[in-house]
Amino acid sequence: MKFSSKIEKSGYSPIRKFYPYQVACQKRGIKIIPLNIGQPDIKTPEALKEALRSYDADVLSYAPSPGIPVLLDTIADYYKKIGLDYSPADIIVTTGGSEALSIAMNCVLDDGDELLVPEPLYPNYLTFVNLTGAKVVPIPTTPEEGYRYAVREKLEKLVTPRTRAMLLTNPGNPTGAVLSAEERQVIADFVKDHDLFLLADEVYREFIYTDEPLASFGSIKEIDQNLILLDSVSKRFSACGARIGALISKNRELMSHAMKICQARLCVATVDQLAAAALYKVDFSYFNEVKEEYRARRDTLYEGLRSIPGVHVELPQGAFYMMATLPVNDTDKFQRWLLEEFDDNGETVMYAPGAGFYETPGAGINEIRTAYVISRERLVRACEVLDKAIKAYNAR
Amino acid sequence: MKFSSKIEKSGYSPIRKFYPYQVACQKRGIKIIPLNIGQPDIKTPEALKEALRSYDADVLSYAPSPGIPVLLDTIADYYKKIGLDYSPADIIVTTGGSEALSIAMNCVLDDGDELLVPEPLYPNYLTFVNLTGAKVVPIPTTPEEGYRYAVREKLEKLVTPRTRAMLLTNPGNPTGAVLSAEERQVIADFVKDHDLFLLADEVYREFIYTDEPLASFGSIKEIDQNLILLDSVSKRFSACGARIGALISKNRELMSHAMKICQARLCVATVDQLAAAALYKVDFSYFNEVKEEYRARRDTLYEGLRSIPGVHVELPQGAFYMMATLPVNDTDKFQRWLLEEFDDNGETVMYAPGAGFYETPGAGINEIRTAYVISRERLVRACEVLDKAIKAYNAR
Repeated sequence: MKFSSKIEKSGYSPIRKFYPYQVACQKRGIKIIPLNIGQPDIKTPEALKEALRSYDADVLSYAPSPGIPVLLDTIADYYKKIGLDYSPADIIVTTGGSEALSIAMNCVLDDGDELLVPEPLYPNYLTFVNLTGAKVVPIPTTPEEGYRYAVREKLEKLVTPRTRAMLLTNPGNPTGAVLSAEERQVIADFVKDHDLFLLADEVYREFIYTDEPLASFGSIKEIDQNLILLDSVSKRFSACGARIGALISKNRELMSHAMKICQARLCVATVDQLAAAALYKVDFSYFNEVKEEYRARRDTLYEGLRSIPGVHVELPQGAFYMMATLPVNDTDKFQRWLLEEFDDNGETVMYAPGAGFYETPGAGINEIRTAYVISRERLVRACEVLDKAIKAYNAR
Repeated sequence: MKFSSKIEKSGYSPIRKFYPYQVACQKRGIKIIPLNIGQPDIKTPEALKEALRSYDADVLSYAPSPGIPVLLDTIADYYKKIGLDYSPADIIVTTGGSEALSIAMNCVLDDGDELLVPEPLYPNYLTFVNLTGAKVVPIPTTPEEGYRYAVREKLEKLVTPRTRAMLLTNPGNPTGAVLSAEERQVIADFVKDHDLFLLADEVYREFIYTDEPLASFGSIKEIDQNLILLDSVSKRFSACGARIGALISKNRELMSHAMKICQARLCVATVDQLAAAALYKVDFSYFNEVKEEYRARRDTLYEGLRSIPGVHVELPQGAFYMMATLPVNDTDKFQRWLLEEFDDNGETVMYAPGAGFYETPGAGINEIRTAYVISRERLVRACEVLDKAIKAYNAR
């Protein structure tokens, strides 16, 4: 029996691939400080549990394929509150932002097509692109330039007759870079001029720590036919396990193609949609409290990493991720060692090795992606453990 | 901007594509008797609500990509109870049976590959196959022969160097046909001899109305490397809206490829997994009660349809679907008319037009698929309305 070339080409998630080692490590009684996964420890609003408790239908039925009307309405309301005019017909509820991404790619990418993505990138993008038969063309960036990619000449050089779309995460995962208004306009002009789709993953929209106001590509009217917004409740409401996302676009043809896939997969989980509708009614002040906590954590982790000899790190402006360069020759091997051979007073650290965030072979091998979604005390301790581990590893 | 050739080639679900007409019809105050969708009205076991009410985590977190351990364990236990030995490592929890199907296809099908599927078929299969770039090669059947397809010579004729796998639903959707032990062996020998994967969609496993015992391809040891079981709680526990399915195989390489996709989509909804684990603990007597109810409904619908002049129908042995041939020239047009122009005392009927269940062009145009998942009284009424509608339609 043969497997498909597309799955053979795909790899494991650099964020999740150490799961078996993690389990084995924990079995040995070692405590792991998780810097590897974007799973916030922030409490999910109480509205979630209230919605679950009040669920009272006799039959847990299929929902409509585009989403339950009350959730579509509350998502449209949320967009109104941030100044964007999307009607329920412009919105499809998906199983997490991941499904929104996969549906969008299946609608616009053919075998051999090219998708421009700033690098380092969210590695799960690669798997979804592989399955379409298209390929990612990385837009290179450097930590020294703050991972900026919205430079017209840089983008122009990468366009070929097979370029179909550009995909970006703003605020960025894994870099934490936030596009300025000028940069957003550069990208809008670029996709408009080349007739490309723009897949804008804005799941971290609320998490910006500079004076830059909350912003969406949805506010740039002239690209409303190019734009496909990918959204999710996971980070916004600290509800990653709800798996409720959204695909949003004013391009009717795109939405109508997307509906074919949505009908084939029938619907998104009914109870989670009801719970997500309750979450969207939470007062916006929730975001501000959460944001202040993340800002403080970012500063803590930044200071902590910066104080480790040989570590290079840039202060991110948004999301809750931070890339860092470590003074070890392969962060993948170092991670295994951290889980199999090291502990400091019964504790070790997990991060996501950098190479998985690059499509360019060999890139990112001494980088790591960290997530500051644990308490400040634990972040301080993580840096302490990492400092000792690097010294021990290099002294072997 | 261009759309992908794969999505252009895909169509809308014949089961769900009339949704907008349905909404418009209901807005006009017409009541619709739904024979179109496999949404049972059977009460979901109370264990579901108990599980939702007892959910008490502060943070709704991501679940592990393969599934929550307690659910993997309960699924393994369920298989033990039906005499099959699957360990949690042989099981991946998916977002409904649909995701299990999509993952399996992405693992085994390349562009230009061929997948054998008995026809009429579950139409959503076509969309998922299209997205892989492969194509469905239909195994033709006839209602007169009871939709039998497990005939070695019939299968042999369809094999080409590009044949990679066979996909079947047993008990069948849309036909209700149930494979005998001999037929299962024919298929097992066939896939073994040709080194093909067998994707066995057994989501209706419990719903058999003959003396044929509950059976799974999992009991045929010699094909354990060929077999990929697709499963779901949707029909088993009348919990379609939970979107909890499973991909099950003893082929380690397949499972390891599947895990790449599972990691990319992160996880299945956490609360639904906990609720599904509770459902799997429901006593097996539940199935027997439900089965008796379905058997009675099947008989009611069969008698009702058979008594309409010009209607041809065969008694199905399993699942809860029934194909019927109507004395109208296009059941698709007839359905639109039923929703836009007809009512009998404020009521009309929805079914799924037959053509969508055939890949062969022109086939099934005067057939319909019905589902007997509503009360016997409503089934009787549906047949009465359909009878009057056919007369009115043909008298126009």
